[in-house]
Amino acid sequence: MIKGIIFDLDNTLVDFMQMKRSAVYAAVYAMIDAGLEISTEDALKRIDEIYQKEGIEYQQVFDTLMNDLYGKVDYRIMSAGIVAYRKAREAALKPYPKVFPTIIELIKMGLKLAVVSDAPSKEAWLRLSYINFQHFFDVVITYDETRERKPSSVPFNMALEALELKADECLMIGDWADRDVVGAKSVGMKTVFARYGDTFDTKFPGSDYDINCISELVEIVKKENSIYE
Amino acid sequence: MIKGIIFDLDNTLVDFMQMKRSAVYAAVYAMIDAGLEISTEDALKRIDEIYQKEGIEYQQVFDTLMNDLYGKVDYRIMSAGIVAYRKAREAALKPYPKVFPTIIELIKMGLKLAVVSDAPSKEAWLRLSYINFQHFFDVVITYDETRERKPSSVPFNMALEALELKADECLMIGDWADRDVVGAKSVGMKTVFARYGDTFDTKFPGSDYDINCISELVEIVKKENSIYE
Repeated sequence: MIKGIIFDLDNTLVDFMQMKRSAVYAAVYAMIDAGLEISTEDALKRIDEIYQKEGIEYQQVFDTLMNDLYGKVDYRIMSAGIVAYRKAREAALKPYPKVFPTIIELIKMGLKLAVVSDAPSKEAWLRLSYINFQHFFDVVITYDETRERKPSSVPFNMALEALELKADECLMIGDWADRDVVGAKSVGMKTVFARYGDTFDTKFPGSDYDINCISELVEIVKKENSIYE
Repeated sequence: MIKGIIFDLDNTLVDFMQMKRSAVYAAVYAMIDAGLEISTEDALKRIDEIYQKEGIEYQQVFDTLMNDLYGKVDYRIMSAGIVAYRKAREAALKPYPKVFPTIIELIKMGLKLAVVSDAPSKEAWLRLSYINFQHFFDVVITYDETRERKPSSVPFNMALEALELKADECLMIGDWADRDVVGAKSVGMKTVFARYGDTFDTKFPGSDYDINCISELVEIVKKENSIYE
């Protein structure tokens, strides 16, 4: 019987890539407005390369861009970029459609809820707090606790232990088949592929379910649990 | 003849203390909402003490608060505080009334404008960018450039050199008599005390002028320059 749902965070609960794209575009426009003397395309390409090299959570991306271009940080330009980035991020960081009512519905059904994310604690929690989701989850497991990334079984087992549930009592939902689905399956959970957040054009996620809207979770839980009624 | 105005930033152009107070209050409420188990008063007092000890620009104030209380950072609580802080800061960080039109008027009169601030470069520029003031000033001198705080003559002389003006061609306006007025006077500038930003209940600022609204600057410049007409 399903008693808990484990959610991936980025691209499953929040549209992380869209947020990042909006924020970086806004920052580039603002930096050019403030005197950055390269084209929008060149700036976006360089920023993308910095994120590729340093990781998507890298916090000094504009410092690095300035240093690459000028050998030093121009604070007039960089601060314009940071402010534009922050404002655009806040505007763009939203849960996907139906995430909010679906979570409320799942809570009303008596399910325990967890997040298992490979993001660092501070960044994961900041994103949850920005969308006012900090009270929803019984358990939030991030890279700071596990030091192992999905598909490692470590984060999944840590979540199960904290939830006080067995693997076959939990559904895992995520957008990244090779990490979320493979990892959750390996410890014995049923899995749901969040196709609406897929950025790899995944053909065969290998999950038990494959959904285009998170609201489908409610029916999946009802179906899974119908044999116990 | 007055050809340039040198502005202090915090509590002269922007109401820094009000911004800080609003942001810290919002953060404390959000952290208590997220599980912080101390009173509002106790939290405010502890945060004030941290700022007293580490300086008002200290960026890890909530980490320090968590560590003092629990010996570790609770990211659920801290992220709620950071998000609330950022939102309140953005809402509260505004130029004082009449700053915007006064600056436009001074630019139309052909005056060069500078900022001389003891804040670190990044923080000073972020505040200027948040209020969209990054294009107004010909020169911005911060602690990173000078490594000397007002009333040292270093930041004032650096501003004069960058403006290519002599001391008697500039007015300095600031809210802190012992730093802004004393320092600017020592290099030979006329001075204006921004009484509207005074947090010390200053009786005798020792300045040439003493104003309750920044818009009075326009008449002061006209008066100073009338003998040249």
